[in-house]
Amino acid sequence: MSATLLLIFELAGTIAFAISGAMVGLKKRMDLFGIIILGVTTAVGGGVIRDLVLGRTPPATFQDPIYALVAIGSSVAVVFPAVRSQSDKRRVVSDRLMLVMDSVGLGIFTAVGIKAAYTTSDTHNWFLLLFVGVITGIGGGIVRDVLAGNIPEVFARHFYACASLIGAVVCIISWDSFGETLAMFIGSGVCVILRFLAVRYHWQLPRPE
Amino acid sequence: MSATLLLIFELAGTIAFAISGAMVGLKKRMDLFGIIILGVTTAVGGGVIRDLVLGRTPPATFQDPIYALVAIGSSVAVVFPAVRSQSDKRRVVSDRLMLVMDSVGLGIFTAVGIKAAYTTSDTHNWFLLLFVGVITGIGGGIVRDVLAGNIPEVFARHFYACASLIGAVVCIISWDSFGETLAMFIGSGVCVILRFLAVRYHWQLPRPE
Amino acid sequence: MSATLLLIFELAGTIAFAISGAMVGLKKRMDLFGIIILGVTTAVGGGVIRDLVLGRTPPATFQDPIYALVAIGSSVAVVFPAVRSQSDKRRVVSDRLMLVMDSVGLGIFTAVGIKAAYTTSDTHNWFLLLFVGVITGIGGGIVRDVLAGNIPEVFARHFYACASLIGAVVCIISWDSFGETLAMFIGSGVCVILRFLAVRYHWQLPRPE
Repeated sequence: MSATLLLIFELAGTIAFAISGAMVGLKKRMDLFGIIILGVTTAVGGGVIRDLVLGRTPPATFQDPIYALVAIGSSVAVVFPAVRSQSDKRRVVSDRLMLVMDSVGLGIFTAVGIKAAYTTSDTHNWFLLLFVGVITGIGGGIVRDVLAGNIPEVFARHFYACASLIGAVVCIISWDSFGETLAMFIGSGVCVILRFLAVRYHWQLPRPE
Repeated sequence: MSATLLLIFELAGTIAFAISGAMVGLKKRMDLFGIIILGVTTAVGGGVIRDLVLGRTPPATFQDPIYALVAIGSSVAVVFPAVRSQSDKRRVVSDRLMLVMDSVGLGIFTAVGIKAAYTTSDTHNWFLLLFVGVITGIGGGIVRDVLAGNIPEVFARHFYACASLIGAVVCIISWDSFGETLAMFIGSGVCVILRFLAVRYHWQLPRPE
Repeated sequence: MSATLLLIFELAGTIAFAISGAMVGLKKRMDLFGIIILGVTTAVGGGVIRDLVLGRTPPATFQDPIYALVAIGSSVAVVFPAVRSQSDKRRVVSDRLMLVMDSVGLGIFTAVGIKAAYTTSDTHNWFLLLFVGVITGIGGGIVRDVLAGNIPEVFARHFYACASLIGAVVCIISWDSFGETLAMFIGSGVCVILRFLAVRYHWQLPRPE
């Protein structure tokens, strides 16, 4: 049951990340190939960086292509105006739905990253666990922005990365007490809630003068 | 015999890729170090990404430095105006020769990438094979463009990446029936022909509005 | 004794590299998260690339987080104007101190990279040793610049990368004759001296027209 739930969450995140990548490609006037690559990269890029750092080769995304296939499908869908039109209220993927899916994706990817570190590496220090969790959550977006010639969004805007970071901390703290599955849901949940609150109340990190 | 032919093709591709990288460095007003690094990166970067994904460390290019040395030489040559001057019809590397070598490079690198996946990894699913083939073909150019502050050309222009992709598909399909060597030549050939046709007839992928 | 000295040098380099990264983040108007990430990336990025190429996973920086922690502290410190103010002559980190620490960092990181190649990989050809040394020295700065949307400084300015390269050559040549420790200090020393001379006498690589 919880495995199915996890899969649904992961796929929701994959779709949302792929759409965000494909939209950047569209905005940059890329062709269909570029749009698909940017969509897939955003969806699976964080996991690939994670696996390279952990020494899991070939990375998980190449062993189970379901996520990449879903990302390709989502990226192609973005090309059809009906899916993304800003003015059409009946469009398939509304801003609100995107926010929900993107938040769920950020939370679940962070937790999945931490799980990967626990199950792959013998090194379990805090720094590795946190890095691997957060990079799984935000790495795809960073690669997307670098490939599109933008400064990564997470460096300059939003509370985004911090939601992932705090979710990761909560997930790691809960790991020994509550077990893997529960810790992953608790960590993801904290991340999602923080991400919602940050959007709702316009939380921002300080930006030094 | 076919090993020699393969080596000649690989070296032709290495030279063409290195020149294209060094030219970008020149255009961006880099110094000699930057020009050489960009040339070498373009020539061997795709193979390095491939090997990192496949877990082959150190990457092949560090085990057999011949390609990097050829790339360094080609990059240095570009600095001399006689080699690259646009107006001089007798210049050593004409546009036509560059197109031929670059196309051969794209084809042969794609096939070499697929061979690396077959011989290295236990995972042989389509997605991995295609990714590894295409990234070997186009990865160096992507790194070149990111390092030079440009949006990767393959995302926005040309039929380029698709020639590599279709060549990879043909190569993989032929692998079991025709054996490694023949499959590599067939896949490369298809890629080269498509790349020529694309330039000749100005093929472009659709670019959504 | 020499181990302590090495650690002191490495920490000086880590602080200088982190500050240079954090300063770029500040200039690009990033928020606190972006500034810290850019600082840490600059400090440990070269070593991470080195370890990925050598197949050392997880990279050393994740096994011994002291360097990352020092980098985080240095990046946060940069946010306080007293530390970085250009006009205040009594500021904690003067330009001269930065130059010394950055040079020491470049030299010692280059030598540490070569040591990593000797102790990790069975492949000991010149090309791998040089690459691994230089990338440990300049890789963090390259990643910093790419993430900040700049063309990497080392490609266009300064004699910087060449100091690392020549230091690496000297270190490798000395390795068999003088042993690990002495070779590392000799190589680092040459790099530091060249870097100083380059700044003092405005050395530049040729930049082709």
